[in-house]
Amino acid sequence: MKYAIIGTGAIGGFYGGMLAKAGKDVHFLFHSDYKEVCQNGLLIDSEVFGQIRLPHVQAYQNTQEMPVCDVIFICLKTVNNKTLLPQLLPPLLSPNSIIVLIQNGLGMEEDVSKLFPKIQIAGGLAFVGSNKIGPGHIHHLEHGDLNLGSYNVQNMAQLEQVAQDLQTAGIKSFATADLPKLRWQKLIWNITFNGMTVVLNTSTDKIMRNKALRQLSLEIMLEVIAGARACGVALSDQLAPQMIEYTSKMLPYLPSMKLDYDHHRPLEIQYIYQNPVAAALSAGYKMTRVDMLTKQLEFITAQEG
Amino acid sequence: MKYAIIGTGAIGGFYGGMLAKAGKDVHFLFHSDYKEVCQNGLLIDSEVFGQIRLPHVQAYQNTQEMPVCDVIFICLKTVNNKTLLPQLLPPLLSPNSIIVLIQNGLGMEEDVSKLFPKIQIAGGLAFVGSNKIGPGHIHHLEHGDLNLGSYNVQNMAQLEQVAQDLQTAGIKSFATADLPKLRWQKLIWNITFNGMTVVLNTSTDKIMRNKALRQLSLEIMLEVIAGARACGVALSDQLAPQMIEYTSKMLPYLPSMKLDYDHHRPLEIQYIYQNPVAAALSAGYKMTRVDMLTKQLEFITAQEG
Repeated sequence: MKYAIIGTGAIGGFYGGMLAKAGKDVHFLFHSDYKEVCQNGLLIDSEVFGQIRLPHVQAYQNTQEMPVCDVIFICLKTVNNKTLLPQLLPPLLSPNSIIVLIQNGLGMEEDVSKLFPKIQIAGGLAFVGSNKIGPGHIHHLEHGDLNLGSYNVQNMAQLEQVAQDLQTAGIKSFATADLPKLRWQKLIWNITFNGMTVVLNTSTDKIMRNKALRQLSLEIMLEVIAGARACGVALSDQLAPQMIEYTSKMLPYLPSMKLDYDHHRPLEIQYIYQNPVAAALSAGYKMTRVDMLTKQLEFITAQEG
Repeated sequence: MKYAIIGTGAIGGFYGGMLAKAGKDVHFLFHSDYKEVCQNGLLIDSEVFGQIRLPHVQAYQNTQEMPVCDVIFICLKTVNNKTLLPQLLPPLLSPNSIIVLIQNGLGMEEDVSKLFPKIQIAGGLAFVGSNKIGPGHIHHLEHGDLNLGSYNVQNMAQLEQVAQDLQTAGIKSFATADLPKLRWQKLIWNITFNGMTVVLNTSTDKIMRNKALRQLSLEIMLEVIAGARACGVALSDQLAPQMIEYTSKMLPYLPSMKLDYDHHRPLEIQYIYQNPVAAALSAGYKMTRVDMLTKQLEFITAQEG
């Protein structure tokens, strides 16, 4: 199987690099890092797997030069989907391709499917702490699971093969038909900590050490779980205290939205906040705290713009 | 009637100055401004009443030198009540004194009554835009009403006399036995804008110009009104859109908690947030958004400390 990595940053660089290291046929799209990677290759400093050097990767500056691929990992921010994907993807696609959206939020698959109605689409849920610390240079801190959920995949065996390839590369992975469950499960954490670190200009460890915010985090998580349930996704309330516990033990961490905010980049409010709030609401449940956080983020974004 | 002004800042300086200008017997406690006021007097630059010069006011540096007074206006921040009032007030008090707490929040009268169980206590609700812009120098921007509510006043005629004196001085005022209604009515505005301007580091006009926050402000106000109702205080939902409209027309304004935050002073979270949330909750209503704002403020305070 041929893999394309669209957006070779902290996420794309890590998963693409791991697949390439395992001998898979991986084609990387680079933006500003292209020249440096051609000279020096791709480097993953992993606290889990050690130092991974890939002196020669199949690097590209634009997708017209890339081959048609079986699996296309989209590792861009969701804010770029509508503007960039219609230009970037056509050269890579065959009727058998699967586009895997390794992104956070709810409803991206639906929107991308409108752009490419005949192509198979899946969601990728990454549980990984990694940062890009230089051109073609990834720092992998901890975890790494990448789970795959079908949106409209006809050939599930093909998606299962992707999970198999990831496992071969040392990445825990499974493929499932229940994409909504994967998406909502990850939203529990993302909704809670992305917005709160931006609004309060802080990091996850400081939130966890503060009694009031630890309690508020738990309440927001329970609200997301109730929202998921309203949408027909059965998640246990027990996930909330478990995730609080997990987050307490994490290294101090800035969620991706906080990094975006600090670098004056657009925030992924639509898919991580507005869509889940709207989905729960039309299923009859108002996520009051999440809605308040959404409005605070909308204000912050408007002040930035 | 003898008046004492405890805390001659933006509020105490304005109301005390207006009473003194009208010929009332007013005794002012100053802190850092004492020497300047002895030399230059008290000055109110009012956009409503014009320039009011009081070259000679009865100024004091400590309450031991002040006379026993009939009416004591407390114009300190609530965070100072427990530490300062037991030292400051005894020299001023007779069995006929009324302590008027011109402060924002809920439950101050109860706490001060525990400190002075034999003294009459009332609340004062100030609707005024005024700032201290220099030593003994007040800038009065707009409005000015000061309404009085009895907590345990035996002699209502005396409290009505205070309202009468204020009216003589050009200040709209009335006295009522329904203090909870006055307090909750003012909380609608204070809970909404004090916290939001601190958490989002902004001013009322920017909140009003942002669609998402204008909507959130309305929702918070309706929550406070529902909280009041749970506590037996009948307030109409119509107050919420009215106050939104009123705030839209206000000059750009930094609420007192935002000024406290900007000057690294303690925030009045207990009386403006924690007490109302707890009161509504024990009456069976959870003010979810107000509680979330409270927790965000508690976090911000903890980071400052």
